[in-house]
Amino acid sequence: MNTAAPSDRPLKVALLGCGVVGSEVARLLTRDGDELARRIGAPIELVGIAVRRLGRARDLDLPAELFTTDAHALVARGDLDVVVEVIGGIEPARELILAALEHGASVVTANKALLAEDGAHLFEAAEKAERDIAFEAAVAGAIPIIRPLQESLAGDAVQRVLGIVNGTTNFILDAMTTTGAGFSDALDEAQRLGYAEADPTADVEGFDAAAKAAIIASLAFHTRVTIGDVHREGITDVTAADVRSADEMGCVVKLLAICEKISTPDGDAVSARVHPAMIAKSHPLASVRGAFNAVFVESESAGQLMFYGPGAGGAPTASAVLGDLVSVARNRRQDVHGPGDTAHADLDVLDVGRARTRYHVSIDVDDRAGVLASVADAFAQYDVSIKTVRQEGHGSDAQLVIVTHEADDAALAATVEVVRALDMVRDVSSVMRVEGLN
Amino acid sequence: MNTAAPSDRPLKVALLGCGVVGSEVARLLTRDGDELARRIGAPIELVGIAVRRLGRARDLDLPAELFTTDAHALVARGDLDVVVEVIGGIEPARELILAALEHGASVVTANKALLAEDGAHLFEAAEKAERDIAFEAAVAGAIPIIRPLQESLAGDAVQRVLGIVNGTTNFILDAMTTTGAGFSDALDEAQRLGYAEADPTADVEGFDAAAKAAIIASLAFHTRVTIGDVHREGITDVTAADVRSADEMGCVVKLLAICEKISTPDGDAVSARVHPAMIAKSHPLASVRGAFNAVFVESESAGQLMFYGPGAGGAPTASAVLGDLVSVARNRRQDVHGPGDTAHADLDVLDVGRARTRYHVSIDVDDRAGVLASVADAFAQYDVSIKTVRQEGHGSDAQLVIVTHEADDAALAATVEVVRALDMVRDVSSVMRVEGLN
Repeated sequence: MNTAAPSDRPLKVALLGCGVVGSEVARLLTRDGDELARRIGAPIELVGIAVRRLGRARDLDLPAELFTTDAHALVARGDLDVVVEVIGGIEPARELILAALEHGASVVTANKALLAEDGAHLFEAAEKAERDIAFEAAVAGAIPIIRPLQESLAGDAVQRVLGIVNGTTNFILDAMTTTGAGFSDALDEAQRLGYAEADPTADVEGFDAAAKAAIIASLAFHTRVTIGDVHREGITDVTAADVRSADEMGCVVKLLAICEKISTPDGDAVSARVHPAMIAKSHPLASVRGAFNAVFVESESAGQLMFYGPGAGGAPTASAVLGDLVSVARNRRQDVHGPGDTAHADLDVLDVGRARTRYHVSIDVDDRAGVLASVADAFAQYDVSIKTVRQEGHGSDAQLVIVTHEADDAALAATVEVVRALDMVRDVSSVMRVEGLN
Repeated sequence: MNTAAPSDRPLKVALLGCGVVGSEVARLLTRDGDELARRIGAPIELVGIAVRRLGRARDLDLPAELFTTDAHALVARGDLDVVVEVIGGIEPARELILAALEHGASVVTANKALLAEDGAHLFEAAEKAERDIAFEAAVAGAIPIIRPLQESLAGDAVQRVLGIVNGTTNFILDAMTTTGAGFSDALDEAQRLGYAEADPTADVEGFDAAAKAAIIASLAFHTRVTIGDVHREGITDVTAADVRSADEMGCVVKLLAICEKISTPDGDAVSARVHPAMIAKSHPLASVRGAFNAVFVESESAGQLMFYGPGAGGAPTASAVLGDLVSVARNRRQDVHGPGDTAHADLDVLDVGRARTRYHVSIDVDDRAGVLASVADAFAQYDVSIKTVRQEGHGSDAQLVIVTHEADDAALAATVEVVRALDMVRDVSSVMRVEGLN
């Protein structure tokens, strides 16, 4: 185990993974080594790069002997100061990170999936090893959000975080808003331009955003939230009609990750959910275009803050990784470690049914007397208060568009069930949450 | 001198100043002491508050014996872990901070004027004392910008920072944009609503923004920039006509703090300037309304980032102060100190004449043949390339509106001199820089 406190001796760094992000990290470490050394106060030495296959053409001017396929041996060599993990996925990333910590290295990782599933385990291992685990790159690429939550807002009480944390879905929804296209045409275009993968499931079904929501909620509220705690709805059901309705209400449709602290009769609790929502055009998040990400934080003293930037990509993610690397290397040099993760608040995670927001509901109805009364009655039955009703079309094309006041998610869901069963209702064609409207 | 490394013993904190920010810090320290202790890992104890006059009604439930008028004795007591300075101004803040560091305390300060004038001196003193000096609250209130520059972007190369860092002037310019009012009416309104002080000089003449520009440029480029190095123009000459012209170009007028790294034949240098500018409505800074602040960062790997939030006010500034307090207290507890300020790049600061940007120039002319040729000739003489020319009005009311390609500030100034002296030119009624247009 590497117990010696380095002072001016070179800090030894190993890199796990050499894909888009990893090769950019290796390139910058090599090119900017002198500048980074000045910022850290000691030189850094890249001593090994673990890859799946040797011999793949990598556009890196590095000696071949740096590369190895034996990641386990690399992290166990015992003289490493920092291990940078950019393999992704659960295994072998988890066991490699745990081994790195056990052998005395601090860890920098961009692995949102692992952190969202098993962050607590990693944080405990780091605490026990008295080393750092830094992960700015895991949420929203180069946008500093982890450090602001952990440090800048450490003296404040965060109440709510709203994030656009997936670039692919924001690109698709922005294209739908701009061109009027439906979901599948916009997805095709995103794939053609390289903003969506061939299998877009992780993005469009909200899995990627849910992992980030779990990480954000844990840090913002000093508690443990895993991806399994996050309510998740993707954007595959968002229609061109939804986007038009949003526009008519002065809104745009965004896939939001929403993390909230909620007061309950049993004390404070947290709620974390990912779903498409209409958001007022006057809200700063509404102007986040294309594949950009942004995280909007509401806290007691600081008020409203927003962090905006590119949420993905090799170079931005490498920037976040290198920022973390400089920080943990500075700590290694002083033989200290950062504050780590605090989960002292230990809050319950509420079921999405208890989240409260407003709703936009489109109902296809028969155009005859009494239909509004019956529908309104169903809403009243579950205490869902209606703010506006608008009838559109006539005859067999009639539609009621209802916007509610704030209501429980469970109450709204029950209301929709009842409405759907009404004789004169042909279909509830769309239900969407609404954020940021007065 | 306080040399003992605290472990779980309470950390002793003294507060210098108990105005709007100081009393909010004291209130939150008292109310949230238990929560802050959990985040720091040790309790904190507020041991003294230095004020100018005792007995002033302060809405604080604190024992009278905490208050003292002898700030010098307070910082010299020798057992302090952290001194929070929120007095402002150069003296006695400077000598109190230096004394606090000498006596072994880390320092948290919101004092932009002092940092912009003599930051180097304070940073050296902190380094020598092996203590922290933290100052997130000095720039843009609660918006985390110091820490992102010092830490998150520590592995990246910042190229340019554009900031709206003064809430008063943004409120005034936003009101002019929204209502069409002139500067003095908008200032009156801002004063009436409490967004501008009775003597608004520090804000409207750009002194406050220039101090923040000096701090940002120093951190972003790892060099020393003082307020004296910052070119400064206020907003008092911005007219309703300028705001209208901006709108016609698809721009809004903002007071921008611009910090740039510039390649010269003699190597890299920096430029820092504060002046009103037209900025494209599509630029994220254009949508920063009212008294909000935002800082837009362009860096090599991360690309474009923006940080947005309230730039002033007691509670937001207190949030930033407490965030810093938690960080430096964590460090005191481990008996370490943060990375400190690095000025290793040691770059020259360029005269504003060498800054390059685009210009919008309004020229009142006689409406006769040859006027455009003469004016165009003057621009050509100094190599200032014209992008668009538009003639407005006729006869004695004729005006040429010229937008240039990028040009040196000095070349543009020389051009304006020549144009102003032309026979057929009655006046150059407005010259304004343009940012963010393609």
